[in-house]
Amino acid sequence: MIEAAPTTAADVLEHATEVRVRYPECDPMGFAHHSSYVVWLELARVELLRIWGLTHRELDAAGAHLAVVRLAVEYKRPARYDDVLSVSARLSRVTPARLEIEHVARRGAEVLCTGRVTICCLRADGRPQRFPPELRVILDNVPLEAAEGI
Amino acid sequence: MIEAAPTTAADVLEHATEVRVRYPECDPMGFAHHSSYVVWLELARVELLRIWGLTHRELDAAGAHLAVVRLAVEYKRPARYDDVLSVSARLSRVTPARLEIEHVARRGAEVLCTGRVTICCLRADGRPQRFPPELRVILDNVPLEAAEGI
Amino acid sequence: MIEAAPTTAADVLEHATEVRVRYPECDPMGFAHHSSYVVWLELARVELLRIWGLTHRELDAAGAHLAVVRLAVEYKRPARYDDVLSVSARLSRVTPARLEIEHVARRGAEVLCTGRVTICCLRADGRPQRFPPELRVILDNVPLEAAEGI
Amino acid sequence: MIEAAPTTAADVLEHATEVRVRYPECDPMGFAHHSSYVVWLELARVELLRIWGLTHRELDAAGAHLAVVRLAVEYKRPARYDDVLSVSARLSRVTPARLEIEHVARRGAEVLCTGRVTICCLRADGRPQRFPPELRVILDNVPLEAAEGI
Repeated sequence: MIEAAPTTAADVLEHATEVRVRYPECDPMGFAHHSSYVVWLELARVELLRIWGLTHRELDAAGAHLAVVRLAVEYKRPARYDDVLSVSARLSRVTPARLEIEHVARRGAEVLCTGRVTICCLRADGRPQRFPPELRVILDNVPLEAAEGI
Repeated sequence: MIEAAPTTAADVLEHATEVRVRYPECDPMGFAHHSSYVVWLELARVELLRIWGLTHRELDAAGAHLAVVRLAVEYKRPARYDDVLSVSARLSRVTPARLEIEHVARRGAEVLCTGRVTICCLRADGRPQRFPPELRVILDNVPLEAAEGI
Repeated sequence: MIEAAPTTAADVLEHATEVRVRYPECDPMGFAHHSSYVVWLELARVELLRIWGLTHRELDAAGAHLAVVRLAVEYKRPARYDDVLSVSARLSRVTPARLEIEHVARRGAEVLCTGRVTICCLRADGRPQRFPPELRVILDNVPLEAAEGI
Repeated sequence: MIEAAPTTAADVLEHATEVRVRYPECDPMGFAHHSSYVVWLELARVELLRIWGLTHRELDAAGAHLAVVRLAVEYKRPARYDDVLSVSARLSRVTPARLEIEHVARRGAEVLCTGRVTICCLRADGRPQRFPPELRVILDNVPLEAAEGI
């Protein structure tokens, strides 16, 4: 079993990750391609999980694959090559089988995009399962105002 | 000015494109990564535009960059490496400054994901503009039931 | 065990695959990014394998992962968005543990790049192994002039 | 004209960049896809340029596109998801129209891959040109033992 690092509720709910826009992530117009943001949002979720003491690698090894079941992104201003962005992930809702994460990508004070991602847990055969105990422990400590049902 | 090919309303509204899942589009669980679908949906939109007689290259050259401003995807079943998918794009709404396209990705009869993408038109400096005439001509021919305001 | 389709030597040695350059495969200069060609060369190898009656999926399932151990690419002319390329893969050398494939990517008669890729076979733990029997059967039928040692 | 930051020869020749392997950069075997390394090598070159006081964005704006004309990579050990790698770029040769950069990607003390990349300078129309003055200034300060002709 994976041992989750001790965390406090304040740490649990939100984390921002720095991302620098790569050359091949930009399109012929010089803007970051809209699919690149989807990758960056995941990087922010990965770092939030890491603060919780969990990694995709360990979860995959434990047979618990966190899968995106719903994705919604609003693109407000284009990112360009070499921009340094701050991409945040905030746990906004929890149910026994689903998490919802809200994202904001910023360049300095400017909001470039917002996103909302719903995650469930799949077995290796692609069928849904409940979240594994190491993740449940963390989610059970999430303050109530964040723990609305989806 | 770009010359749009003559089309009939029946052609205009929907088109499906075949996509084979590539090895680097799949993740360590063997499932296609959720960002890969975002790329495939764009491929289907590109082919719908091509049927209309337009290409991104010509539009970009004409200073009219079609940009995604909103993206929503529901993932229902995972695609795997080497699967052959049919990805459809259907023009569902039109306003003077925005298009909405509905997507479905299928493997045979199975629906793997659905998506809704809102497109606007940007100038090279990233600011919004109205759709160029060659696209307006096509959109003006879209039957009324598809041309609801967004 | 995987059943290889019957092939003749003429089929075995070379195959060309059509690839259309995708928007996110191009960089802010409007040229296809040099890493995109690396993905296209693999697509051509995959189709050569398919002609041999083999797929990466089946080989992976059989515990035989074909891995690239050496890659050399010469870029001669840039590909651009929406170009349709022909990418060939030709088996050029065989040893008990390695294959060498030569690639050419063309746009019409123009050669855009050439590549040479050396493949070995890894176990799931990342250690090298001999090629599996279903691949050996095919390689043993390769005419002698192509079967020089590496 | 772009102003290059003052550098000393010791700074100029080599720089290592940290890269964390992303989930979508890994394939169904759990190994980083061989095309991902090509992207990482470029990240290391970008950071070497940055130390020289130059960015791709400024060079592109000045009409000087640095393009890869030759790429050779030796893959020695596979990288896996979430590995933190150190990727170095070292200027090894200079001619009036070409640069050669040598790369090593390491995970701790282990060498995962080595690469050699030859760069030339293209105009916006895709034709070769000499390096721009802001880059020549830097290259002229490279010690002789690194400045062999290619």
